[in-house]
Amino acid sequence: MQAQDYGSPLFGALRGCCGKAWQAYVDHPFVVGLGDGSLRRECYLRYLRQDYVYLIHFTRAWALAVAKSDRIAEMRAAAAIALASIDEEMRLHVATCAAEGIDEEALAATVEEPETLAYTRFIIDAGVRGDLLDLLVALAPCAFGYGEIGARLAATARLPAGHPYGEWIASYAGPGYQDLCRTVGTLMEGVAARLIGRDVPSSPRWPDLVRTFDAACRLEADFWGMGLRAEDGREA
Amino acid sequence: MQAQDYGSPLFGALRGCCGKAWQAYVDHPFVVGLGDGSLRRECYLRYLRQDYVYLIHFTRAWALAVAKSDRIAEMRAAAAIALASIDEEMRLHVATCAAEGIDEEALAATVEEPETLAYTRFIIDAGVRGDLLDLLVALAPCAFGYGEIGARLAATARLPAGHPYGEWIASYAGPGYQDLCRTVGTLMEGVAARLIGRDVPSSPRWPDLVRTFDAACRLEADFWGMGLRAEDGREA
Amino acid sequence: MQAQDYGSPLFGALRGCCGKAWQAYVDHPFVVGLGDGSLRRECYLRYLRQDYVYLIHFTRAWALAVAKSDRIAEMRAAAAIALASIDEEMRLHVATCAAEGIDEEALAATVEEPETLAYTRFIIDAGVRGDLLDLLVALAPCAFGYGEIGARLAATARLPAGHPYGEWIASYAGPGYQDLCRTVGTLMEGVAARLIGRDVPSSPRWPDLVRTFDAACRLEADFWGMGLRAEDGREA
Amino acid sequence: MQAQDYGSPLFGALRGCCGKAWQAYVDHPFVVGLGDGSLRRECYLRYLRQDYVYLIHFTRAWALAVAKSDRIAEMRAAAAIALASIDEEMRLHVATCAAEGIDEEALAATVEEPETLAYTRFIIDAGVRGDLLDLLVALAPCAFGYGEIGARLAATARLPAGHPYGEWIASYAGPGYQDLCRTVGTLMEGVAARLIGRDVPSSPRWPDLVRTFDAACRLEADFWGMGLRAEDGREA
Repeated sequence: MQAQDYGSPLFGALRGCCGKAWQAYVDHPFVVGLGDGSLRRECYLRYLRQDYVYLIHFTRAWALAVAKSDRIAEMRAAAAIALASIDEEMRLHVATCAAEGIDEEALAATVEEPETLAYTRFIIDAGVRGDLLDLLVALAPCAFGYGEIGARLAATARLPAGHPYGEWIASYAGPGYQDLCRTVGTLMEGVAARLIGRDVPSSPRWPDLVRTFDAACRLEADFWGMGLRAEDGREA
Repeated sequence: MQAQDYGSPLFGALRGCCGKAWQAYVDHPFVVGLGDGSLRRECYLRYLRQDYVYLIHFTRAWALAVAKSDRIAEMRAAAAIALASIDEEMRLHVATCAAEGIDEEALAATVEEPETLAYTRFIIDAGVRGDLLDLLVALAPCAFGYGEIGARLAATARLPAGHPYGEWIASYAGPGYQDLCRTVGTLMEGVAARLIGRDVPSSPRWPDLVRTFDAACRLEADFWGMGLRAEDGREA
Repeated sequence: MQAQDYGSPLFGALRGCCGKAWQAYVDHPFVVGLGDGSLRRECYLRYLRQDYVYLIHFTRAWALAVAKSDRIAEMRAAAAIALASIDEEMRLHVATCAAEGIDEEALAATVEEPETLAYTRFIIDAGVRGDLLDLLVALAPCAFGYGEIGARLAATARLPAGHPYGEWIASYAGPGYQDLCRTVGTLMEGVAARLIGRDVPSSPRWPDLVRTFDAACRLEADFWGMGLRAEDGREA
Repeated sequence: MQAQDYGSPLFGALRGCCGKAWQAYVDHPFVVGLGDGSLRRECYLRYLRQDYVYLIHFTRAWALAVAKSDRIAEMRAAAAIALASIDEEMRLHVATCAAEGIDEEALAATVEEPETLAYTRFIIDAGVRGDLLDLLVALAPCAFGYGEIGARLAATARLPAGHPYGEWIASYAGPGYQDLCRTVGTLMEGVAARLIGRDVPSSPRWPDLVRTFDAACRLEADFWGMGLRAEDGREA
C-alpha cells in the first residue's frame, strides 16, 4: 500500500527526510497491537485517557494557528479543525471512554503523563517561536500519521466483526478523517507557498523544519510508548 | 430602556466604572446616524470596509482565547465564536459589501486605517500580556456594545420598512446576536470566578481591568469616528 | 549626506520600497522643528511623555524577540537591547523629563495616546503572528530611523551651543546609538539569511515584509504628529 | 538546616503544598551524588550538555516574563536575569564544558532529550496560557530549588578541596546565585500582590498554581533522572 501525501508534497518530503522516526511512529508496537487486536486493554485505556488531555492541547494548537494567520481561507480551515476537535471529537472521545467504564469526571481528573506534556507543549512552542508554517509542521505528524495508520490498518486488517479496535481504526480510515488530512495538506501547501515558495527543501529553513517534524514523530512514538507502560509514571 | 448585563455582573460593573467612555461609544454620532438613518452612505461604506479587516483580527482574538484556556466548555464557546466570525459573519459581511458594490477583491485590498489597527492589536496584546480574563475584558465592549446598540436602536427606531440601516440594526438586535452576548456573558463570569472569585471589583486587578475596558471603549468610539471622517487618513 | 544601511542591505531594500512613508517619517515637521530648534516646547514634552510609554513596549518587543529565537548570538543581542532600554535608556529618559519639570510620578500617570498604543501593539502583534524576522522588520523603522535622523540633524545643524534639542540630537547621533543601529543591522541580516536566504526581495514573503515596514513608518509619522497636536486627544 | 523562602511566602506555601514532589526533586539521587561526590562523571556530563539546551529556553522564558509585564521594576529584574542567563551563565557553562572536553561545537550539536524538551516547553506554555504569575510559578522550582540545593550541599558537604563537584555547589551556594533567588522572591511576591492580593492560597487560582508548581518539580526530578540514565534516550 502506497503511503499518501494528502496533497502535500511538503509532507511527503518531510516524511522522506525523517524516515526512521516516521516508521518508528507509524509502525510502533502499539500500532501493531491495535491492528492485530493484540493490544492489551489497559494499554488502550491509558492511551485513551491521555488522548483526552492531548485533544485539549491539540485544539489549543489549531486555535493558535488561527491567531497566527490573517488569510481568511487559512483561518477558516484552522478554526473548523479547532472547533471540531473540542466539540465533536471530544464528545466522541468522552462517549468512547464512557463505553469503557471511564466517566467524564474520571477523564477530567486524568493526571497528564510526561509524554503527553512534552508533545503538546512542544507543538504550542513551535507556534510561539516561529511562524504558521513552523506550527503546521509540528502538527503534521499527528494529523497525517493517524490518517496513514488508519488507512493501512483498515486495508491490511480487513477488520473482522468483533475486532477489538475496529471502531478506532474505522474512524481514522473513514472519509471524515481522510478528508481532514487532505484539508491539512492543502493548508500546509498554501502556507508554505506564501512563506517560502515552491521549493521548500532548498530553503535555509529546511533543516529547522526537518528537525521540528522529526522531533514531533519521536514524541508521537513516545506517546504510544506511554500507552504500553505497565503502570503510570506519575501518581495522582 | 434598561441596559442589560447579558448575565455578567462583571460586565455591568465595568460599564458602570467606565460610564463616560461607554456612553461616548454607544451614543456616538455614527450610532445616532445609523439609528435615524441620517448617516451618510460613504461613511457607512468606509465603516463596512474597515469592519472586514476588524473581523479578521476579532477572529484571531477569539482563537487566542481558545489557546489561553484548557477548560473544555470555555474552549468550545470561544472556538464556536471564532469559527462563526470567520465563516458565517465574514460571508454575510462580504455579501453585504457586494450588495453595496464593493466586491471581494476590493474588500481584500482594503488598507487598514490606524483606528482599526490600534483597536485590534490592543485586544490581541491584552491576551498576550495577561490571562484569559484580560483578553475577554478587552473583547467585551465590542461584543456587548453591539448588542446594546442593536437592541436600543431596534426598540427606539421601530425600523420602518426602507430604513437604510434596518438590516444592520436587525442583525444585532436579533436573537442570534443577543444569544451570543449571553454566551460571552456566561463565559466571562465563569472565567472571572475561576481566576479571581466572586468579588472582582475588590481584586487588586480591578484597576487594570477597568483600564483595559475603558481603553477598548475609547478605541471603539475612535472606530466610529474613523467611519465619519470625510476621507481616508491613509492612501492605498 | 548619504543615508546608511547600517550593514543591512535588507533595511536598505525596505527603505527603498517604502520611500514615501520613510521620508514622511524622517522628514516630518516634528523632526524639522527638532533640527532647527523651532519645535514648541509643549510639543516636545508631549512627545517625551509618550516616549516613556513607548519605551516600555519597545522593551517588551525586544524581549519577545529573545523568546522567538533559540540562537545564542541573536538572543544575546536582543536581550542586551531589552535590558538597556528598560534600564539605562529609561533612567536617562526619567532624568530628562525631571529636568523638564515632569517627575517620575507624573510620567507613570501618563495616559497613553492612541498613536502610541497603535504603534506599540502593532509591533508586538507582528511578532506574535509571524516569526522573528517579521518582528525585526516591524522594529526596524524605529531603530534605524532614529539613527538616520540623529546623524543627519547633527551633520546639518552643527548644533550650536544652546540648541534647545542639541542633547536629543547628540544622543542619537552619538557612537552609542549608531553602534546599536549596526548591531540591529547585523542581527536582521543574520535572521533573514537563516529564515529566507540571501535574496529576500525575491521571496514570496517580500510583499508582507514591505507592508509591515511601511505600516511601521506610517505609525512613526503618526507618533510625531501626536507630538504636534495642540492638545491631548485623550483625557486622563 | 532550615529551608529558606527567599523573601517569598508564596514560594514557601507552594513548596509546602507540593512537599512530596519538592523533596523528590531536591533530594534526588543525582543531587545526593553531587553532594557526596559519588555521581558518575558521564552522568554529570550528560546533565551539563542538556543544561546548555535548558539555559536557552530558560532565557526565553525570562524574556517572555518581560514581554508579559508593563511594570518597569518587574521588567528590569526579568530582563537582567534573561541577559545574565544567555550571556554570563552561558559563557561560564561553555567554559565548564570546555574544561570537561566538550567544545562549543559539540555543545551546539546536543540533541535535546525528551526530559529537557518537556520541562522547558511546559514553562513557556505556562506563560503563553496564563499571566505573569503563572509563568513565574512555573519558573520557581528551578530558580529556588538550585538555591536550596546549593546552600544545603555547601553546608553539609563542607566541600573538601578536590571535591569533584565543589565548583558546581559553590556557584549555587555563593552570594551571586543566592541574591538572584532573593530577587526572584521579591519579584514573585510583587506580582502576586498586584494580581491576586496578599492571601494567595485563598484565591480560586490556588489549585492551578499548585498544579503548575508541582508539575515543574516533577519535571525537574525527571531532568536529574535523565542525567542518571546510562545512555541517551535519543540518537543524534
